[in-house]
Amino acid sequence: MDPVPIIGGTGALGFGLARRLARESVPVVIGSRDAGRAQEAAGRVGNGAEGLVNAEAAASGPIVVLCVPFRSQSETLTNLKNVLEPGQILVDATVPLAAAVSGRATRLLGVPQGSAAEQAREMAPEGVEVVSAFHTVSAPMLADLDHELDEDILIAGDSRDAKGRLAALVRQIPGLRPVDCGRLEVARHIEGITPLLISVNARNRTHAGVRLTGLEEPRW
Amino acid sequence: MDPVPIIGGTGALGFGLARRLARESVPVVIGSRDAGRAQEAAGRVGNGAEGLVNAEAAASGPIVVLCVPFRSQSETLTNLKNVLEPGQILVDATVPLAAAVSGRATRLLGVPQGSAAEQAREMAPEGVEVVSAFHTVSAPMLADLDHELDEDILIAGDSRDAKGRLAALVRQIPGLRPVDCGRLEVARHIEGITPLLISVNARNRTHAGVRLTGLEEPRW
Repeated sequence: MDPVPIIGGTGALGFGLARRLARESVPVVIGSRDAGRAQEAAGRVGNGAEGLVNAEAAASGPIVVLCVPFRSQSETLTNLKNVLEPGQILVDATVPLAAAVSGRATRLLGVPQGSAAEQAREMAPEGVEVVSAFHTVSAPMLADLDHELDEDILIAGDSRDAKGRLAALVRQIPGLRPVDCGRLEVARHIEGITPLLISVNARNRTHAGVRLTGLEEPRW
Repeated sequence: MDPVPIIGGTGALGFGLARRLARESVPVVIGSRDAGRAQEAAGRVGNGAEGLVNAEAAASGPIVVLCVPFRSQSETLTNLKNVLEPGQILVDATVPLAAAVSGRATRLLGVPQGSAAEQAREMAPEGVEVVSAFHTVSAPMLADLDHELDEDILIAGDSRDAKGRLAALVRQIPGLRPVDCGRLEVARHIEGITPLLISVNARNRTHAGVRLTGLEEPRW
């Protein structure tokens, strides 16, 4: 099985995702700006996880997951411009929370392109398909392997093939159900669910996720 | 029990809501611009439902549900300016879909106030509390009384008391669970889930709804 590079894999979401994938024997490569931090996180993930600087990590597998904070999304993609290659899939998991500019985490910034995912598409090299995912699953609940997941991963993107390949990866993690939500522009609505969940979490001291009802067998 | 006026109750969402409430013996008053259409819809709801023109309907109970299309929201609220009274709760269920201006139903219009709910707050008379709700429940599934509901009603608003009173009304309908999502400004994120679900529905030929996970006993 191809390794899965997770850019920003030392952060909460990336680390949680790495742990879940590694447990299912999916080889993961933690990317970080700092090789030492990447290796340290990879050590905590275990199961053969590797740690590399972002640029090396991003070249290590066909489906690259971008888990950096929105504040660093643009800079990170600039640095990966000469690394990412046509045919790779870039999975954008960033959320333009106002917290990126010291605002509230229950508020979303207006992104000129319409969403963080569409900013990623604008910046990704030609031939790299951008898919949006992982905005509603709680990072701590991913990292807590004792927690039994039972929720949906809402996926948006313009390439049916790229979405399908990501869905196959998502299905490796028990308890996560991929749902195709449509074109990449729909990502703005999905990104908005994160601040909504943060608001619900604050009120309920929980880590809420989303499950769509009326959807027994999502179409892929 | 106080009657529940449903402004725009001849439309799909209002009508479905009226049917569900009426089945639980909650008295409902269908409001429409046209008295004849209101009465006709009330007849189809049955269980003692009444039909009145919007202005008369809006005066008939303390919790007024606004179910008009976004295209008519502003006009309707202008017409209700001298009818709504301090202490009443206005439940805004409108969604600023681009379909209102012949665009796609998977796209949201930018509303100057931030959301349809905040536009409603700007237009509601002083002392009327605006609460946002009913954006993720399918109108046809509400109207189909044989369908067993099992989903959440996401509620946003600045008055804890008003939200609590609406939650009590929502709990009258079996299978609907009210969730306090925070302040009224969060409504923009909830309104965005409607076009997302419309996109999912088109792909899956279903009527999806939302259930938050990790939330066994939502706090009220």
